[in-house]
Amino acid sequence: MSLKPIFVVAGLGAGGGTGAASARAFAKEGYSVALIGRRENELKTLEDDLKASGVEVASFAIPSYAHGDVASAFAQIHSRYPSSKYSIRAALYNATHAVFKSFLDVTPEDVQSANQTNIEGSFAFSHHVIKAFKDNSIDEVTGKRGILIFTGSASGVRGHATNSAFAAGKFALRALSQSLAKEFGKENIHVAHPLIGGFIINPLSRAMRNDSEWEQNQDIRLNPESIAASYVYLAKQDRSSWTWELDLRPAHEQW
Amino acid sequence: MSLKPIFVVAGLGAGGGTGAASARAFAKEGYSVALIGRRENELKTLEDDLKASGVEVASFAIPSYAHGDVASAFAQIHSRYPSSKYSIRAALYNATHAVFKSFLDVTPEDVQSANQTNIEGSFAFSHHVIKAFKDNSIDEVTGKRGILIFTGSASGVRGHATNSAFAAGKFALRALSQSLAKEFGKENIHVAHPLIGGFIINPLSRAMRNDSEWEQNQDIRLNPESIAASYVYLAKQDRSSWTWELDLRPAHEQW
Amino acid sequence: MSLKPIFVVAGLGAGGGTGAASARAFAKEGYSVALIGRRENELKTLEDDLKASGVEVASFAIPSYAHGDVASAFAQIHSRYPSSKYSIRAALYNATHAVFKSFLDVTPEDVQSANQTNIEGSFAFSHHVIKAFKDNSIDEVTGKRGILIFTGSASGVRGHATNSAFAAGKFALRALSQSLAKEFGKENIHVAHPLIGGFIINPLSRAMRNDSEWEQNQDIRLNPESIAASYVYLAKQDRSSWTWELDLRPAHEQW
Amino acid sequence: MSLKPIFVVAGLGAGGGTGAASARAFAKEGYSVALIGRRENELKTLEDDLKASGVEVASFAIPSYAHGDVASAFAQIHSRYPSSKYSIRAALYNATHAVFKSFLDVTPEDVQSANQTNIEGSFAFSHHVIKAFKDNSIDEVTGKRGILIFTGSASGVRGHATNSAFAAGKFALRALSQSLAKEFGKENIHVAHPLIGGFIINPLSRAMRNDSEWEQNQDIRLNPESIAASYVYLAKQDRSSWTWELDLRPAHEQW
Repeated sequence: MSLKPIFVVAGLGAGGGTGAASARAFAKEGYSVALIGRRENELKTLEDDLKASGVEVASFAIPSYAHGDVASAFAQIHSRYPSSKYSIRAALYNATHAVFKSFLDVTPEDVQSANQTNIEGSFAFSHHVIKAFKDNSIDEVTGKRGILIFTGSASGVRGHATNSAFAAGKFALRALSQSLAKEFGKENIHVAHPLIGGFIINPLSRAMRNDSEWEQNQDIRLNPESIAASYVYLAKQDRSSWTWELDLRPAHEQW
Repeated sequence: MSLKPIFVVAGLGAGGGTGAASARAFAKEGYSVALIGRRENELKTLEDDLKASGVEVASFAIPSYAHGDVASAFAQIHSRYPSSKYSIRAALYNATHAVFKSFLDVTPEDVQSANQTNIEGSFAFSHHVIKAFKDNSIDEVTGKRGILIFTGSASGVRGHATNSAFAAGKFALRALSQSLAKEFGKENIHVAHPLIGGFIINPLSRAMRNDSEWEQNQDIRLNPESIAASYVYLAKQDRSSWTWELDLRPAHEQW
Repeated sequence: MSLKPIFVVAGLGAGGGTGAASARAFAKEGYSVALIGRRENELKTLEDDLKASGVEVASFAIPSYAHGDVASAFAQIHSRYPSSKYSIRAALYNATHAVFKSFLDVTPEDVQSANQTNIEGSFAFSHHVIKAFKDNSIDEVTGKRGILIFTGSASGVRGHATNSAFAAGKFALRALSQSLAKEFGKENIHVAHPLIGGFIINPLSRAMRNDSEWEQNQDIRLNPESIAASYVYLAKQDRSSWTWELDLRPAHEQW
Repeated sequence: MSLKPIFVVAGLGAGGGTGAASARAFAKEGYSVALIGRRENELKTLEDDLKASGVEVASFAIPSYAHGDVASAFAQIHSRYPSSKYSIRAALYNATHAVFKSFLDVTPEDVQSANQTNIEGSFAFSHHVIKAFKDNSIDEVTGKRGILIFTGSASGVRGHATNSAFAAGKFALRALSQSLAKEFGKENIHVAHPLIGGFIINPLSRAMRNDSEWEQNQDIRLNPESIAASYVYLAKQDRSSWTWELDLRPAHEQW
């Protein structure tokens, strides 16, 4: 394979979480990186940081995860990384819209926003990624045309009193990932759905909690770098033993 | 309870399936009926049929399951069945938008239509039903303020190669039902999610299959009346032993 | 069907719980009753009570749920209820051996006792019941040769810190019930696995708790009679819509 | 940690499958190895092979997975690998007793054999492993006192027509693993339950199938070495992101 592999990640948050850690981790494995996100400034900062580390990277800011916006990002990615030199080999849908409210406080707008980011966006993203993968040759080492990873959640398997709109989106994401894994496995496209079962430490959660004890206790929250390491592991699994789903949770998590 | 109980059902299809059978079954138990559906003609025919059987019934045609349309139906229901004389005691969300296609053939419109009917509509319907239930007294026999039933599907627990958009919606519906069951059980509101694990015989499936052998073999497809009987059973369960989820499938179904 | 239907129940505890309530409920539906249990005195008392209510009943005390003891009970049942006049049409495996201990306190004997009652016994019971069902005609109303019900538990789907040996047995029971449902559904034998998701009020739990408030609050514990009502409902489901699994929990249960 | 880490594996089959591959893989990571199995000759051959590769290894043949036999193996392990120099840091319960028969052909002996190997043995093995782990310090890199892995199966989550006795054991094993993961995670003991969702290529399956096409097609069966690689990955996961369960299946597996 003389084409340079690309890792596409959608959902970068404020730039210091799972998406960013995954971008770094795949870059270390030799991938060039395409970043899709809604926060233009943070996205640019992350792009600059990665460039400073010697990563070939480009960022694509979109206003929403509506299918048209996602399509536009992929058009730009294909333009920036032409298929004569590059091929998309790994992709991560990490975008999420969380809503934690009592049900009667959930508004129609909450439901629409959650559905757009968690479902419409993941369908659109998958469409462009799967189409790109189908043009790839099968990698000799891994037996893959590509790997598509979705960042899932414990809310993807368990509805509770205050996560209805979020759980709906995450259950739906899980359904999509299972359908894709079953339809495209036989074409050597690997689809995985890690279930994050706890809180991730990232700029947003640090700011929200402002709790240095929580930050320092590695037994009670997830490191983005550790999640990213699992994503790289999944990308390296060979064709005889692929994983669709695995849970990831801190050692001391109650579940 | 001197108020007359109302059974509200959304999703009547062509008028001879699960929704219609449930309307008849709850009417036999003493409920007045409110029918919500998109096919105005079939809805009117069903309304007339039920009236001819002596059922107090009103129908409310809506153009879609967008939250505004659902809200408008409930406004009309409350007007037709004033709270001085009636109370909503049972509700069934039976609307569904099925999509069975290979993933790359699923269009953005498919995803949006499926999400609107399977998710946006079910959230809107639940919002109005739960609000109505909260005003009810607790029934002495069943220990309920009301029961909200969702018609679920085997596609709500299993994504496969050609049901991605449908499964996404049905997984999401299941998430919603579980969140509601957990949040409102403690207020004596019963939420149930029967999983239909096979094909239902109804006007649409009869027309599509045109297979009298299939129609006559009760071991291989579900009768709407049998499903409706299970819904009535759920409505009668007393507070000590409520069911959130049960599967319903024909005796000879392979699973 | 001119043969008198028999309901066989194994696992009567102290005689005032789910097994006993089920015996009464099926007797009301016209079944004669065969009781299998380990507590000879309580079994005899229950038998006498049922006889006093006009039920045709016989009890069969066994020392354990080892397969030989179960076989011996069925030999006696067939002798007491000869196939010229009777047919086993419904059966409930309600025997259970609960162990709630920290893992390191679980002894080899705990594991063996739990396995014997929860697994070896249920396999043996099922063997004799399925063989009896296969000789039955198909009931015209329900489309069944018979129904075999297992009393499952929330511990059958969820291992936690102190239920390892019990969960192992209950997970195994669930596996058995699913295998049987799939293998024998096509022969019109109905197998069901209700999941009890809370505490049942019965002589043993009353004595253990000694808490009249708990006893009187129907929102927080299960009535054996309500469970039995669900078992009778399952027995009446017609062939087009059978349930393998349903959960049963009090309205206010946290889950 | 100046103590040499030990990897204990029970269940080596004919010596060329998952257990053997795991022994090699952990040896490469610096572990000494203790092999527990029932086939004395094959065990000795494997031991000799590993020794020839420079692995510190000892084998312990036992007649069965009855708790007493397992206890005796651990007594020998502790004697061979004294705690002054060694500590058990990783353990794999890979023993299994598969039964694939129509239910009525399953004998009481099948049930007992399956229960002994799948349940009694796994409880006994876990008991000795967890006790050993509790004496360990927490590893600085992984945050673990040790990792206990169970080789699970698709039959651990799905009963079907011909796997009742095997599924019962594998469901039970899954219950045990979940209980242990929840009870001992807070003591930094990692418990994992990979679900093998397909056929593994090993000496027994090669001999049974005698199908070189199947052997050569890496898309349709699992390599023991690939499974072992996933076990090593689990052992290396750091405390912030541990996996209890992951599925492993060939790229083209239908599920």
